[in-house]
Amino acid sequence: MFEFKITAKDDTGARNGIFQTPHGPLETPVFAPVGTAATVKATQPRDLKELGASLVLSNTYHLYLRPGDDLVRDMGGLHNFMRWDGPMLTDSGGFQVFSLSDTNKIDDDGVTFKSHIDGSMHRFTPESSIAIQENLGADIIMAFDECPPPNEYDYVKNSLNRTHPWLLRCLEAKKRDDQALFAIVQGGIFQDLREESARFMMEHDFPGYAIGGLAVGETKAQMAQVLDWLRPVLPENKPRYLMGVGTPEDLINGVLRGVDIFDCVLPTRLARHGSAFYKGGRMNLKNARFKRDEQPITPNSAVKEFSRAYIHHLIKSNEILGHILLSMHNIRFLINLMEEMRVAIRENRLQAFADEYLSHYPPL
Amino acid sequence: MFEFKITAKDDTGARNGIFQTPHGPLETPVFAPVGTAATVKATQPRDLKELGASLVLSNTYHLYLRPGDDLVRDMGGLHNFMRWDGPMLTDSGGFQVFSLSDTNKIDDDGVTFKSHIDGSMHRFTPESSIAIQENLGADIIMAFDECPPPNEYDYVKNSLNRTHPWLLRCLEAKKRDDQALFAIVQGGIFQDLREESARFMMEHDFPGYAIGGLAVGETKAQMAQVLDWLRPVLPENKPRYLMGVGTPEDLINGVLRGVDIFDCVLPTRLARHGSAFYKGGRMNLKNARFKRDEQPITPNSAVKEFSRAYIHHLIKSNEILGHILLSMHNIRFLINLMEEMRVAIRENRLQAFADEYLSHYPPL
Repeated sequence: MFEFKITAKDDTGARNGIFQTPHGPLETPVFAPVGTAATVKATQPRDLKELGASLVLSNTYHLYLRPGDDLVRDMGGLHNFMRWDGPMLTDSGGFQVFSLSDTNKIDDDGVTFKSHIDGSMHRFTPESSIAIQENLGADIIMAFDECPPPNEYDYVKNSLNRTHPWLLRCLEAKKRDDQALFAIVQGGIFQDLREESARFMMEHDFPGYAIGGLAVGETKAQMAQVLDWLRPVLPENKPRYLMGVGTPEDLINGVLRGVDIFDCVLPTRLARHGSAFYKGGRMNLKNARFKRDEQPITPNSAVKEFSRAYIHHLIKSNEILGHILLSMHNIRFLINLMEEMRVAIRENRLQAFADEYLSHYPPL
Repeated sequence: MFEFKITAKDDTGARNGIFQTPHGPLETPVFAPVGTAATVKATQPRDLKELGASLVLSNTYHLYLRPGDDLVRDMGGLHNFMRWDGPMLTDSGGFQVFSLSDTNKIDDDGVTFKSHIDGSMHRFTPESSIAIQENLGADIIMAFDECPPPNEYDYVKNSLNRTHPWLLRCLEAKKRDDQALFAIVQGGIFQDLREESARFMMEHDFPGYAIGGLAVGETKAQMAQVLDWLRPVLPENKPRYLMGVGTPEDLINGVLRGVDIFDCVLPTRLARHGSAFYKGGRMNLKNARFKRDEQPITPNSAVKEFSRAYIHHLIKSNEILGHILLSMHNIRFLINLMEEMRVAIRENRLQAFADEYLSHYPPL
């Protein structure tokens, strides 16, 4: 279980691999759509499967608050509750505690925070985060960590002194052997701290290593730099997971730098705002110029039988089907990109693929 | 085209038939879900098909205002615009002009009204209603009529003097021969007026007859009475369409009285409010008693793989998937009921079927 086999490698260092989970093999590199509250917004599980989704992420913070992780456990776990029978991943709740709760207080033992739903007070510790994730029952679970402001050296350095002991407490607390606990390398935008964090974690041989604390305000160039620093440090034979990343450009730049797993709410969030990915940018279907446009969003869109004019009408009329169709389009767009990159890796032409693809976007 | 063939008749007088349309045969009795703004709320066309939907209704008033019937025509008509390739029906816009517009003024020529979207002023006449419906291009289109308060004899009587000439103007205005224009019998809850209206319309041999002005405030017993009066009057060999009706009890009572076609927003409206049909009533999935209920909504629900607990969670969390799943459940519930009635008619046991089914509901 949780074996990671690299099946092809490209000259760039990008990898095509298979990660074995209790809910089936996961081919990498992979993009995971996010099902925050045990549902990838506006999509049915069977549609997700048809769109080629293989890994789905769900949020510990949200599910702990509602409906409660004990309830999810009693309903047979997250897979059974939301009827997703493929691989799943839960985060630790740490990131949301800091980004969603308007009141939170961190100490060396854990974090006390206020629910964004009803204002009630709660507390997460490494132990409780693992206990909640064991109740939820995803295949991949994440270490409880602090996500510090990436540019503040002293803050980030001190934060590692909290995150590293917390990682060991997570490891200690973990009881289920059908879940892979991934460590999360922190260290902001600083090479010495990133390397220190990675080396500390590698001493304990985790089944996977996440790269945390990125896509939170640093520049694209800084993100690429951190990935370049970590590439030679992290172990070859373990999957690498870049958390919260999901623009087409970031996915390509991540895969080029050896990343295997990504997740992001972007495809469903853009859909909620009427926006659709295309190669080179995003189009907002609310725009009046699509009013009489008979073309599909893109020629190979997952919803190519529907015209831009129809989707424009749905969005302008606040019809749910508009949200549904854009979600399907955007999720498929990113999954299709990952599929194309896997083929390019197998054919050892990822750099050419990336150069062509990125030429449609503004430079880094 | 538009031939109606009765393939089986039950001792109650209920009919099982086939109505031929340019988009395929329509087996009756049939329930049509409503796609107000060219979308049956929260459902994909392919899901509708899977749920067994055969006829879909859309609203002239809404589509005229947004996106505009000329746009729909230019996009290849409603079938192509919304990607529904089965039979479709549009209403005349008359009912919505009176029920949705806060300002409207009727005269012998037509109705002037204020858009509920932007307050702009518009005018419908029999001629413009037909022209709009020809732009939309449904298989069945409806005569432009007034829907009067059903209990006011003098009002209803005078209203017929408007509706009947309007019907002849609709007939005169109609140009397309691939659309069936249905007449709409009015007359409130009064036998003499209903019969007068039906006889007037039958002089002009329409391909179908609707029964309008019901389900607007009269009692269930009054509705049944009107259907009983009209049954021997309306021609046997033409489909009968009871407009705006869609509770399970009303569908059964309608079919028992010879009605062939029904439509209603109820399944999707209930879904929006968290409510689901079951045999005997409705359950509100918001209710806390479903919080840990592992059962499906009903054993043969269209979404039986999902638990009540999960749907409760989705509704409480305002997740669109809750709305999607309840819409699918409710639409399938009514379509399944129609399928069961068609079989019962063919096996000449509709009365027994109806007695058993209705025994789960309060008496009429």
